[in-house]
Amino acid sequence: MTLTNFVLEGNRLALARLLTQVENNTSEGRAALTELFPHTGKAHLIGVTGGSGTGKSSLVNQLALYYRKSEGSRKRVAIVAVDPSSPFTGGAVLGDRVRMRDISGDSGVFIRSMASRGSLGGIAQTTAALAQVFDAAGFEIIIIETVGAGQSEVDIARLAHTTLVVEAPGLGDEIQAIKAGILEIADVLVINKADRPGVENTERALRSNLELAHPTKRVVRHHGRSLSVTGPETDSTLWIPPIHKTVAIEGKGIAELAESITRHAAHLHQSGEWAARDRTRLGSELEAVLQEALLTRFHENIPQEKYEEILEKVLSRDLSSWEAVKSLLNGTSK
Amino acid sequence: MTLTNFVLEGNRLALARLLTQVENNTSEGRAALTELFPHTGKAHLIGVTGGSGTGKSSLVNQLALYYRKSEGSRKRVAIVAVDPSSPFTGGAVLGDRVRMRDISGDSGVFIRSMASRGSLGGIAQTTAALAQVFDAAGFEIIIIETVGAGQSEVDIARLAHTTLVVEAPGLGDEIQAIKAGILEIADVLVINKADRPGVENTERALRSNLELAHPTKRVVRHHGRSLSVTGPETDSTLWIPPIHKTVAIEGKGIAELAESITRHAAHLHQSGEWAARDRTRLGSELEAVLQEALLTRFHENIPQEKYEEILEKVLSRDLSSWEAVKSLLNGTSK
Repeated sequence: MTLTNFVLEGNRLALARLLTQVENNTSEGRAALTELFPHTGKAHLIGVTGGSGTGKSSLVNQLALYYRKSEGSRKRVAIVAVDPSSPFTGGAVLGDRVRMRDISGDSGVFIRSMASRGSLGGIAQTTAALAQVFDAAGFEIIIIETVGAGQSEVDIARLAHTTLVVEAPGLGDEIQAIKAGILEIADVLVINKADRPGVENTERALRSNLELAHPTKRVVRHHGRSLSVTGPETDSTLWIPPIHKTVAIEGKGIAELAESITRHAAHLHQSGEWAARDRTRLGSELEAVLQEALLTRFHENIPQEKYEEILEKVLSRDLSSWEAVKSLLNGTSK
Repeated sequence: MTLTNFVLEGNRLALARLLTQVENNTSEGRAALTELFPHTGKAHLIGVTGGSGTGKSSLVNQLALYYRKSEGSRKRVAIVAVDPSSPFTGGAVLGDRVRMRDISGDSGVFIRSMASRGSLGGIAQTTAALAQVFDAAGFEIIIIETVGAGQSEVDIARLAHTTLVVEAPGLGDEIQAIKAGILEIADVLVINKADRPGVENTERALRSNLELAHPTKRVVRHHGRSLSVTGPETDSTLWIPPIHKTVAIEGKGIAELAESITRHAAHLHQSGEWAARDRTRLGSELEAVLQEALLTRFHENIPQEKYEEILEKVLSRDLSSWEAVKSLLNGTSK
């Protein structure tokens, strides 16, 4: 029996081993991904991003607990925690993971920390691959947690069906903390630590930035369960990012948040967005793999000396990169 | 006379127009880069990175002022300010730029703000291209300023000959603020706002993290002008990142910092590192352009329907990306 079979059967040790293979991009890992791929496409991928100090990890923790406890469903939850600000040294998010002990004994939850190494494309690509493994292994909810609001987070968020952006009151300059850019990727907004002073300011800043980010939508207050939408924009294809207030360490507001997430998934299905996001994600994955394969094939077919010779001409400033590539491509068949 | 000629002659308006062309990756911009390329390779590229609240922009401002004022040299200074945390909306660093008014009337200084848009590779690539324009236009010092400590910053820092990492006392959790990862790319460390309480803690944290990041080097205190190195590691190929304390808004410590930067450039030349970094940078630029060109050529030579057909098989989970690429490549010549 192969490793992938064990994974499909729910063996946790096999799963852990496979995740390592995939993270290290070994040939065994790649082969397994191919084998597992037909079993993917069922999970709900939830991206959670926010700066340090927002209590993002506690929130993820509580969401996972909620999914495990909610009656009838008891969904299996995987958490992929990525820290793109630690490109070289592993284990940076381990501190956060300590807080996860509430759920760490539960076999329906699997937590994987990933320190992002290597190239930029690599982070998002590896995260996508890990999510695919969890998807195939039958985890219905996959939470991808990233620190910060940089480009890497945006790219990782693009993998998700539903993206949560987490803020907290009193993290200094509101304008700087709440970037319009990151709001454009938000499907659901969360103000965590909502028992702290300044929560109104944070909400006001979020709301006005949200209006900037979604100028065609009217942002409305989200009162508990009902999302009141006013104006002519009320149609099924429109999603207005709700703003939720939570106190994660006390479990407050988690059920309502989870409900919004479920509602967002339903919205994606109804509007055809789910399939569209799937297409975008798999389409760019295909392009990335293709690009890599083309480069590898190119290098296999050009004599190393010829390549070096042209690189030398670039270093001596006799050829620009564009001229160099033109000259390299002329030497090979179309 | 072409735009590039005007740029080479020092016309600021032409320079501004060309930078926009290059940033938007127009064909005119690409053609100009090719024309300008033989004129590049003279500037000292200095990367400055650090979190918000470190006073990084003031520091860059003061450094630029210093280079303009220092006797004999009066070097021309270009500043490229990149904000990777604002992937969609432009002008995010404009607030910082207001502080630049001391130097904005000086024709020997050119400031360019860039909100990072598009793909990840794109940010570093565009920054490199802008730096090339400034280099060709005769700016001897090019400062590339980035916010934060994420992967994008690391990639941008790789463009620089000398990378400054800026910290400040009292930015909360020292361990979280001072990532070992970002220290691995630091050539010079700066504790700005060094008149604030907690400066000793910041220095201690930096020093111990630096020892982790450079385990083979002994990190020594940098007393003003002299860098005292003890032990057998004293050789010309070794660079120990000095730690500088500055109060940028008062101009304190700037001359000493600039001296370290100059000394680092000398070190790079002596050790052969300057040429090695040049080779690495231009080599990966060549690879990036080649990869893009290969993908473009591939799409030009494969019928769109065939590509769509295979993409559909991926979407239906009948083919994994790897299998799809294999099948796509079999259809084309080597």
